[in-house]
Amino acid sequence: MSNNALTKRPEWLALENHFKEMEDVPLRALFADDPSRFDHFHLRLDGLLFDYSKHKINARTKALLCALARACDVEGWRARMLSGAAINTTENRAVLHMALRGSTPEGLEVDGENVTDFVQDTLALIKTTSERVRADKSITDVVNIGIGGSDLGPRMMCRALIASADGPNIHFISNIDGDALSLLLGKLNPHSTVFLIASKTFNTLETLTNTAAARDWLLAALGPDKVYDHFLTMTANPEAALKFGIAPANILLLRNWIGGRYSLWGATGLALAIACGFEVFNDMLKGAAVADRHFIQSPLEENIPVLMALIGIWYRNFWKYDALAILPYAQSLEILPSYIQQLDMESNGKGAGKNGETLDYQTGPVVFGETGSNAQHAFMQLLHQSRQVIPAEFIAIAGAHHGMKAHHMALFGNALAQSKALMDGLENTSEPCKNFPGNRPSSTLILDQLDAYHLGMLLALYEHKIAVQGAIWNINSFDQWGVELGKSIADALIKDFDNDTRNTCTDSSTAGLAQYFREKFIKS
Amino acid sequence: MSNNALTKRPEWLALENHFKEMEDVPLRALFADDPSRFDHFHLRLDGLLFDYSKHKINARTKALLCALARACDVEGWRARMLSGAAINTTENRAVLHMALRGSTPEGLEVDGENVTDFVQDTLALIKTTSERVRADKSITDVVNIGIGGSDLGPRMMCRALIASADGPNIHFISNIDGDALSLLLGKLNPHSTVFLIASKTFNTLETLTNTAAARDWLLAALGPDKVYDHFLTMTANPEAALKFGIAPANILLLRNWIGGRYSLWGATGLALAIACGFEVFNDMLKGAAVADRHFIQSPLEENIPVLMALIGIWYRNFWKYDALAILPYAQSLEILPSYIQQLDMESNGKGAGKNGETLDYQTGPVVFGETGSNAQHAFMQLLHQSRQVIPAEFIAIAGAHHGMKAHHMALFGNALAQSKALMDGLENTSEPCKNFPGNRPSSTLILDQLDAYHLGMLLALYEHKIAVQGAIWNINSFDQWGVELGKSIADALIKDFDNDTRNTCTDSSTAGLAQYFREKFIKS
Repeated sequence: MSNNALTKRPEWLALENHFKEMEDVPLRALFADDPSRFDHFHLRLDGLLFDYSKHKINARTKALLCALARACDVEGWRARMLSGAAINTTENRAVLHMALRGSTPEGLEVDGENVTDFVQDTLALIKTTSERVRADKSITDVVNIGIGGSDLGPRMMCRALIASADGPNIHFISNIDGDALSLLLGKLNPHSTVFLIASKTFNTLETLTNTAAARDWLLAALGPDKVYDHFLTMTANPEAALKFGIAPANILLLRNWIGGRYSLWGATGLALAIACGFEVFNDMLKGAAVADRHFIQSPLEENIPVLMALIGIWYRNFWKYDALAILPYAQSLEILPSYIQQLDMESNGKGAGKNGETLDYQTGPVVFGETGSNAQHAFMQLLHQSRQVIPAEFIAIAGAHHGMKAHHMALFGNALAQSKALMDGLENTSEPCKNFPGNRPSSTLILDQLDAYHLGMLLALYEHKIAVQGAIWNINSFDQWGVELGKSIADALIKDFDNDTRNTCTDSSTAGLAQYFREKFIKS
Repeated sequence: MSNNALTKRPEWLALENHFKEMEDVPLRALFADDPSRFDHFHLRLDGLLFDYSKHKINARTKALLCALARACDVEGWRARMLSGAAINTTENRAVLHMALRGSTPEGLEVDGENVTDFVQDTLALIKTTSERVRADKSITDVVNIGIGGSDLGPRMMCRALIASADGPNIHFISNIDGDALSLLLGKLNPHSTVFLIASKTFNTLETLTNTAAARDWLLAALGPDKVYDHFLTMTANPEAALKFGIAPANILLLRNWIGGRYSLWGATGLALAIACGFEVFNDMLKGAAVADRHFIQSPLEENIPVLMALIGIWYRNFWKYDALAILPYAQSLEILPSYIQQLDMESNGKGAGKNGETLDYQTGPVVFGETGSNAQHAFMQLLHQSRQVIPAEFIAIAGAHHGMKAHHMALFGNALAQSKALMDGLENTSEPCKNFPGNRPSSTLILDQLDAYHLGMLLALYEHKIAVQGAIWNINSFDQWGVELGKSIADALIKDFDNDTRNTCTDSSTAGLAQYFREKFIKS
C-alpha cells in the first residue's frame, strides 16, 4: 500500500463515519442503554481488573477498532515480534524483551545465540550477584548510575516496593547535574558503597561523567587496587566496560534485542534484586509472563493491551484528544507516571512511518500524571472543568499492606469518585463556576495487591499497549532517533565553551545565552 | 461587552489575521531576518535572564499581543488586584499573596484588618517559631502534613535548597494513602518529632485523616498531656485547630486573601524556614518582591510575566498548541514542574468565564515536565520528532555550588543544545527516521544561582504569568470549584462502602468496581 495507507483504509474511514454517530452520545446514555455495560466492558486477568466501560465506545466501536487492528495485521506483527524478526527496522534489531520473561519460543536464535540460554545465564547471574551483594555486610549502600531506561525502571520498582526492601540502601543517580552526585557522595562511605553502572552502550554522556566522578571519589579513599571491586555494570558493550576497568565477573550483559526502556526485565533490574531479593525480581517476571501469555493468546476483542491501544487510537486520531493522564492511587507508585511517560512518548512520539513516509496523522499523546489523591489537589481541576478533554487511566490497589482501613477506603473511594465525577458531571446553570460538563472518559485498572507480581503484569500490559499502537500507526516504536540531534549539538557546544562558541552558536539566541554563561560561570 | 467578547475583539481578530502571515515562517528565518534578534527579544532582571527570541513572533506579533492585553485592561486588573479588590469573584475574596512579599500599599485594609500589620505579625511568628524549633535540639524530625498548595510549595523549596538545609530533617506527607504515613512513622521517634498541619480550611480529608493518625501515634508513646506540644498548624480556621487541641501559640494564621497555591509565601512556608533558617525564607520573599516590582512597574512590552503570558495565549489560541513542557536543568528542581503544573492547571483549567459564559475558546494548557538532562532520555523524543508541537520552557542555572566544572558545562550545554535542536531541526530525506522538522519554540530562563532569592523571583514570575493569562481569558484564576464534585461523590461512596453502595454507585461501572473492592478488601 502507498504511503500513509492507514488513513485510507476502509476500516479507518468506517471509524471516521462511526465517530459522527458517537460524537454527541454522552457516556451516561451508554450506561442507560445497557444495564450490563460493566459486565460487557471489563476484563479480569489473574488478580487484575480492567474496566473500560467509561469510554466513548459501544459494541460497534469495539468491532470497528478490532477490524482496524486486524487490517493492520497486528496479529501477524505480534507473531513476527515473537519469532525474533528484526521489527526494529531502523536499527535492524529483534525486539525480545518478552524473552526475559520466558515468553518466547525455546529454540529461538538471534545472531547465532540461543536466546533462552542467554536469558537463563543472565537470570542466574542476577541471582548470584544480588545474593552476593546482599550477603556482604560490608556493603551498606548501592548506587545505580544510569539515565532514561537504565534508571526509571529500577528506580520506579525500588520505590514501589520500598516497604519490603531488606537489602542495602539503594540510590539512583541519573542527571548530569553534578549537584545530585556530590550531595549523595557527601553522605556515603566509599568503603561500604558499590556502584551499578547501567548503560547499554557504555557510552552515555551522563552515566560516564558520573561514573568517572564516582571512580575519583573511590580512588581518593581506597587507592587504585580496590576501586574496581566497587563497580558492577549492566551493558551490551562489555569491551568498553573492561577497558574502563570493570572485572569480567562484574559485567552483566544486555543484548541489542533488549531496548533500554525494556531493560528492567534483564540485567538493568539488578538494583531491584539487590534491594528486595531475587525472588521479588523473579515475581515481577512471572507477573509479566502472565500478561505476555494473555497478550499472545487472547483474541483481540478480549485482549487487555490491544483494547487499551485501540481506545487510545480512537481518542488520538478520531476525537483528537492529545494527552493522557496516568493516575495511580498509591503513593509508592509516585514514579510510575514518569515510567509510563517514557515508555509511551519515547516509543510513539514519532513523525515518520516505517516506509519513510511523513505521517499525515498524529501518533502518541502527551502522557503525564501524578499519584491520587495528590493529583486531585493539583491538576484535576483542568480535567474536570476545562474545555480540553483528557482521557485518564486510574490505577487502584484493592489490598493494603498497612492496617489503616479508613485511609485505604478513602483512597480507593476517591479513585472511584474521580472517574465517576469525570463521567457524570453536574449541570449548574445558575452558578456556572460550579458547572461540570462531564462526559470525560477513563479506564480503571485494579491490582489486587501492590507487589512485584502485579506490577510486573501491569508494566507488561502497558508495553504491549504501546507497541500495538505503534504497529497500527505503522511506526517503529523501538528506536529513539529523536534524541540524537540534541546530543550532537551538545557535544559541540560543550567542547567550545572554554574557547569560542561562534562556530556552534549559529543563531544569536544560543550565542547570547552561551555568552551569558561564559561570563557568569566559566570566567568567574 | 457580550459573552465571549474576547474572540470578537478587533485585537483578537488582528491576531488571527497575523497568524496566517506567521504560520509558515520558520524560526530560523526570523533569526536570519534580524541579526540582533536576541538583543531585541530578551530581558534581564536582577540575576535572571529571559530569552524569548526562539518563539514564533516578530515585532508586530508582540505589538498585537500587547494591544490585546491593553484591550483586556490587564493594567487596570493589575491595579485592582493590588488595591485589594475582590477579583476572586466566585468566592468574593481579594487576591493579595503579593502582600506577603511587601508589594502592596501600606494602608491596605481587608475585612477591617490592616494587611501590612497582619503580614508583619505573620513573618514575626514564622521567624520566632522556626528559630524555636531549630534551637530545640530534642527535635530531630519535622513532618509537614498538607496536600496540594499546602504541600507542593514547601516541599519543592525544601528539595531545591536541600544542600543548604541545616535544621531538623523535614518530611512531607500529603496522600490519603496510609502507606506513606505508616512507612514514615516507622522510621521516626515520637519524642523527637513535630508535625506541621498545613490546611487552610482545617477541613481537608487527606490532611485531617493523616493528622488523626499522627495524633494516635504520638498518644501511644507520649500520653495525652504532651501530644499537642508536637503540633503546629498553618490555617485560616483557627477555631477548628483549637478544637482539635492545638495550642493558640502554635497556630500560624492564613487569611482568605491567600490562596492555597500561593500560601508558600506565608505561614505555609514554615517548613522551609525550619529547614534552612528564616533568612533563607526571607530571601525568597525578597526575590519575589523584585519580580513583583518588575511586574507592577514595567510597561507591558518589557514585562517578563506579561510576555510569558501573551506568548502562551498566542500558542494556545492561535496555533492551537495545548501542552507546555517545563524543563529545569537542575536535579534539585525535580519538584518544580509539579509546582508549576498545579499553579497553572488549577488556576487556568477553567471552562466558564467571569460573567458565567461558557467559553468558546481554550484556556490553560496541559503543563508537564521533568528535569534536564533526564527528560532528554525520557520524553524529549516526542518533542523533537512527533507531529505535535509542544512549546518548552528551559530553566537553566548559570552558577553551581559544587566544584564539578565539567558536569556543569555539560548540563548547561545540554539545555542550550535542546532549544537549538528543537528550533533548527535537521532535514534528512534519505533516512526519514533521522529527520528533524525543527521549528519548535522555547523560552530560556537563566537564574544566576540556585538559591532562595532567585527561586522566589522565578516563582513570582510564573504566578504573574498565569494570572495575566486568566485576566485576558476572562476567567477567575483564583478559585478551584472543579475539585468539589469528586470530593462530594467520594464522601458519599466512602460512607457507603461498609454497607450498601447502591445509592451512590448509580452506574454499573462504579458499582462493579466498588463490589470488587468490597470482596477483595472490606470483606477479607
